[in-house]
Amino acid sequence: MVILVKNLGNGIKSVTINDPKTYNSLSFATLRSLLNTFKKLDKDNTTKVIILEGSGKGFSAGHNLKEVKSLKKRTKYLKLFNLCSKLMLQIVEGRKPVIAKVHGAAYAAGCQLATSCDLAYSTKDATFATPGVNIGLFCSTPMVAVSRKISRKRMMKMLLTGEPISAKYAKEIGLINECFSKSNLNKEVLKVAKTIASKSNLTIKIGKQAFYKQLEMPLRKAYAYTSRMMTLNMMSIDAHEGISAFLNKRKPKWKNK
Amino acid sequence: MVILVKNLGNGIKSVTINDPKTYNSLSFATLRSLLNTFKKLDKDNTTKVIILEGSGKGFSAGHNLKEVKSLKKRTKYLKLFNLCSKLMLQIVEGRKPVIAKVHGAAYAAGCQLATSCDLAYSTKDATFATPGVNIGLFCSTPMVAVSRKISRKRMMKMLLTGEPISAKYAKEIGLINECFSKSNLNKEVLKVAKTIASKSNLTIKIGKQAFYKQLEMPLRKAYAYTSRMMTLNMMSIDAHEGISAFLNKRKPKWKNK
Amino acid sequence: MVILVKNLGNGIKSVTINDPKTYNSLSFATLRSLLNTFKKLDKDNTTKVIILEGSGKGFSAGHNLKEVKSLKKRTKYLKLFNLCSKLMLQIVEGRKPVIAKVHGAAYAAGCQLATSCDLAYSTKDATFATPGVNIGLFCSTPMVAVSRKISRKRMMKMLLTGEPISAKYAKEIGLINECFSKSNLNKEVLKVAKTIASKSNLTIKIGKQAFYKQLEMPLRKAYAYTSRMMTLNMMSIDAHEGISAFLNKRKPKWKNK
Repeated sequence: MVILVKNLGNGIKSVTINDPKTYNSLSFATLRSLLNTFKKLDKDNTTKVIILEGSGKGFSAGHNLKEVKSLKKRTKYLKLFNLCSKLMLQIVEGRKPVIAKVHGAAYAAGCQLATSCDLAYSTKDATFATPGVNIGLFCSTPMVAVSRKISRKRMMKMLLTGEPISAKYAKEIGLINECFSKSNLNKEVLKVAKTIASKSNLTIKIGKQAFYKQLEMPLRKAYAYTSRMMTLNMMSIDAHEGISAFLNKRKPKWKNK
Repeated sequence: MVILVKNLGNGIKSVTINDPKTYNSLSFATLRSLLNTFKKLDKDNTTKVIILEGSGKGFSAGHNLKEVKSLKKRTKYLKLFNLCSKLMLQIVEGRKPVIAKVHGAAYAAGCQLATSCDLAYSTKDATFATPGVNIGLFCSTPMVAVSRKISRKRMMKMLLTGEPISAKYAKEIGLINECFSKSNLNKEVLKVAKTIASKSNLTIKIGKQAFYKQLEMPLRKAYAYTSRMMTLNMMSIDAHEGISAFLNKRKPKWKNK
Repeated sequence: MVILVKNLGNGIKSVTINDPKTYNSLSFATLRSLLNTFKKLDKDNTTKVIILEGSGKGFSAGHNLKEVKSLKKRTKYLKLFNLCSKLMLQIVEGRKPVIAKVHGAAYAAGCQLATSCDLAYSTKDATFATPGVNIGLFCSTPMVAVSRKISRKRMMKMLLTGEPISAKYAKEIGLINECFSKSNLNKEVLKVAKTIASKSNLTIKIGKQAFYKQLEMPLRKAYAYTSRMMTLNMMSIDAHEGISAFLNKRKPKWKNK
């Protein structure tokens, strides 16, 4: 299986891209499998948080260049890039928080994939790049994700030179949340995942979806929209339970798991 | 009075949320009072800069949860969140620069309030959070303000975990401008306020309003719009006075206060 | 000549604003000359990368205030600001990467000019400012460029106080890519320019234009658009050559220079 799903307990599922021979390249088959996995987990009520990682030497090197070379037809390329975009949109528009856990390289569409997750953590020696320019194929779809997370001149430097950046720098500029030693990464990511999994599923779902939607609206519209979402959230059992628990200084018991 | 307005001289007014018993919670009454205060100061020709702060232990803990719990009806919640949004929009769309002066905690709608100000300064031990997820009520309206100031992954971390961030980190990621020791905060904020108050009121008014408007436009439209605003500004007495003063190496005397 | 164009070899051209007596002020004549220079270089097939700098003490002090004062008529001001905006849009929408090489001061429209370039490098003692507020003329058009590169509170601080920021801070907040000692700036900028010039011209052209366009689109539209651009790019000789070279571990030979 190119995609492995593991149950880590507490509603936490890990999704592993398991194609180490191609450095977890995002071939048609892998993209389709990832997309289906995320769609399934998104509907699964036992899943609260998803951790995405790569097996072998690193996270993902991006598209499978051998496959890309063989496609040849315009329509096939468009199909490939559209499928890849669909996966990224599924992660962003899905209801469950997705945490990228990166080691080794996250390059091109692999960098896009890590960037599309809600949170991203890496080892200290991980590297990130949009190196398409080196092979005559500008990282035009990867930059959609990355340029919405880091500032323009930094993104342009990555795109125009194709050079990788370090985990430390990626953290400094907001591309990832934090980097840890190899021995600590797993533990630290699990800690964050557990914290998020301890919240009301319904609350997170409403919030995550509202987050990305409001970002694309002008301020007045964003306030009108989120006021409605917050009202919807407030009418749920969990908000009443949460506020009662807070006022009574006890732990909340969520219903909308 | 829940809202105190003080005249600090030089056209600087301070607005204090004075409800320390509820950690300056933003109840219906407080929100209405704040909104009216900002509307009044915005029309007041003697006011050039506004400093916003909280009395007691900290800035503001956000909505008044006891009141929120008691509202129960959908229409009342929508009314509350709309009123809160109206206050934030008044600060952003108003003509006078507003500086948040934060000590202690600025949480949830309190964090939103500090973030909605044009500038924000805090003590070194101040903390910022969007902790709604802890009580089952995602910080959906606060994130509208905060997500327009800091990058997405950092915002998502705050929203999904509910954990507070330090003043030092808030400065690093652009949520506040600077943090100072408790003994220096007041002096430093006053210094910035005085600098701004020494400028032409008319110039600041044109500029502040143009700033937030152009940010929501595509580049070509933003240039067409600001070129018109700059022309309008240039036709004022103060621009001519300012340029004359600069060319003659003397201090300008503003007319359009 | 107020604008000097030099051929630095490897497809790298330098454009120098050569009006040191007015601190390279952006008068009508200079703006027109710069605009024409950039238009010409954009169509020139031997030009791959453009380096923009100022002669004398610094980069550029912005508009020519003596000229501005003399214009007097509303229509002339609008003409000036529109011409200035046209230059900035030409740099952004043009097909060739432009690198700002800044020493001394980049103020007002001079700061806007450096910011509008795809990349920016400076000396360690360079300073950046939007000081219009000091002369009663808010930096409304400069802020269009700067506010799309740095976060809002930092921009507001610059706009409302008019105070300059250091190169080190400009780097920290993403306004420039890096700062170097005076003796190293030229060498370092050339190194970046050479790296970029070694890529396929066609690839860079498709990528640069797609970059700024997709930034103004909502996520779904941005993905649909860049998927088409990436397909277009993939159908070019250079992408096939680049991928073949990569798979065969040899250097690519670009055709679309």
